[in-house]
Amino acid sequence: MFFEGSEKKVEVVTASAAGSLRELGREYWSGVVATANAEILTTLSNDDCDAYLLSESSLFVWKDRFLMLTCGTTTLIDAFLHFLDSINEDHLLFASYQRKNEYMSHLQVTSWEEDIERLKARIPGKAFRLGNMDSHHNYIFHMDRPYAPAMDDKTSELLMYHIKGESAEYLRSEKQTIEGIRKLLRLDEILPGFALSDWLFEPFGYSLNAIKGDRYATFHITPQEDSSYVSFETNLDVQDNHVLEKLLEALKPGSWDLIGFNSPAPLRENGEFSSMTECQLSLKCGYDMSFNHYQHKAHCKVEAEELV
Amino acid sequence: MFFEGSEKKVEVVTASAAGSLRELGREYWSGVVATANAEILTTLSNDDCDAYLLSESSLFVWKDRFLMLTCGTTTLIDAFLHFLDSINEDHLLFASYQRKNEYMSHLQVTSWEEDIERLKARIPGKAFRLGNMDSHHNYIFHMDRPYAPAMDDKTSELLMYHIKGESAEYLRSEKQTIEGIRKLLRLDEILPGFALSDWLFEPFGYSLNAIKGDRYATFHITPQEDSSYVSFETNLDVQDNHVLEKLLEALKPGSWDLIGFNSPAPLRENGEFSSMTECQLSLKCGYDMSFNHYQHKAHCKVEAEELV
Repeated sequence: MFFEGSEKKVEVVTASAAGSLRELGREYWSGVVATANAEILTTLSNDDCDAYLLSESSLFVWKDRFLMLTCGTTTLIDAFLHFLDSINEDHLLFASYQRKNEYMSHLQVTSWEEDIERLKARIPGKAFRLGNMDSHHNYIFHMDRPYAPAMDDKTSELLMYHIKGESAEYLRSEKQTIEGIRKLLRLDEILPGFALSDWLFEPFGYSLNAIKGDRYATFHITPQEDSSYVSFETNLDVQDNHVLEKLLEALKPGSWDLIGFNSPAPLRENGEFSSMTECQLSLKCGYDMSFNHYQHKAHCKVEAEELV
Repeated sequence: MFFEGSEKKVEVVTASAAGSLRELGREYWSGVVATANAEILTTLSNDDCDAYLLSESSLFVWKDRFLMLTCGTTTLIDAFLHFLDSINEDHLLFASYQRKNEYMSHLQVTSWEEDIERLKARIPGKAFRLGNMDSHHNYIFHMDRPYAPAMDDKTSELLMYHIKGESAEYLRSEKQTIEGIRKLLRLDEILPGFALSDWLFEPFGYSLNAIKGDRYATFHITPQEDSSYVSFETNLDVQDNHVLEKLLEALKPGSWDLIGFNSPAPLRENGEFSSMTECQLSLKCGYDMSFNHYQHKAHCKVEAEELV
């Protein structure tokens, strides 16, 4: 029942000379997605964005930007290289590729090092690891080119591990429904007015894309006991509306990571959880990146796991 | 400069009907070691034990017991299976195989799952993971046969990560000497009266075997910045003599694990470090196993690492 929920991520910003990325059309993006061994399940569009829900995570396409996340054993690096084949490199304003620590990295098709070797052969870039190798960490590669992000270009990623309590039990149960999960995640409070597109997998697992104007949010839930993982990513300001606190309260993770791009980490250590890793880096491509790993204090008592 | 210091470990106890394991001789054990892709560097013997220092870690052979540790990308599982080929299974009183989280598990020749599949095809056994998959943890396989360890059969493993400060700098420097390292580890205090055999690797790295009667201790130091690791293992009672406290003071690890077999974990959380994982398990082969992972509070501030 093991499934690697942790996502790889690509983000690209293009110059107007490249034309609209949305106009490349669903067939083009479907081909990009297929290169990573995933497929498009649903499409949600508004004036600004096409949001594709994938069999493994999500793709968001704006006129001048796209963002793709894939989990499991998908090969996002292949999709990224495939995209690079179809664009004039001079039209790239910004490009980044991220991977994080996986539960079982040896089951992945390629390693971070292999991915970066292939990327560096194609575009000039820099690569970093934020966080220690033997604990939670995030790898990032970015194109080595100056870029000036807009004021409202802020990204927050909340990655939750070892979810516990009633919500976790519900998400692993047969009785779960899309309506029930939307309620559990308090979507009406944290994403008011967003258009939603979601999917319930068999026997469990849930994905959601949400858009409103040029704002987006996405959830991916891998509830499997022992390797549970829930990711939330958005370009909303997460300091509004106590979004992070609400999600931590709803899902009760044993540990979690908060990654920000031009978005400060507003969670401060308190009596309930400890800050395990704090790492910040000003990337030359214009983003201040932060990586913070937290652990709930009650999470230290662990039962031994009998293996098959 | 990356080197995987973290060891795999085999321990076997045999019945008297199997004859003396020491009498199998150096040539036999040299063959076992070669199967794991290691070689014997030094031999130290007393009335009870032959202690072999290996190119990757250590082998201790008593009349009715052996213990082998290997690090790097050695294939200890092959050595274990090679040994099993040469013994009547009925003569095995106890057998265990351990692996822990590695810094870069995808660089290993085999995974834990593959090792266990091969072992289970040979001897009946049970397998467990102590600690969460996404944090420090220890895997153990043991033969499924009741065994009654002697009263003084206690093992403690102290595995230290991210060593810091003067000692760490010394261990990474060109000026280090065997005498200097022995002093740094305070061997005269923690291993009084032990016979020692040690080895300084080029450009750095250090291994030590120590024996006194049927007691043993072994150190392996991989000082490489960013992936530093120091292991200490012994069948001494580590509550005598404040051994653990002395080593933590000397090496200043950012985090460490303490694994005990019929040996309680005497380190309790204090103002300086936090207990991150606590896991205990009564193995049906007669040992109470404990796994404890600790982190120093100052270790949470981490610099981003630029990767080549």
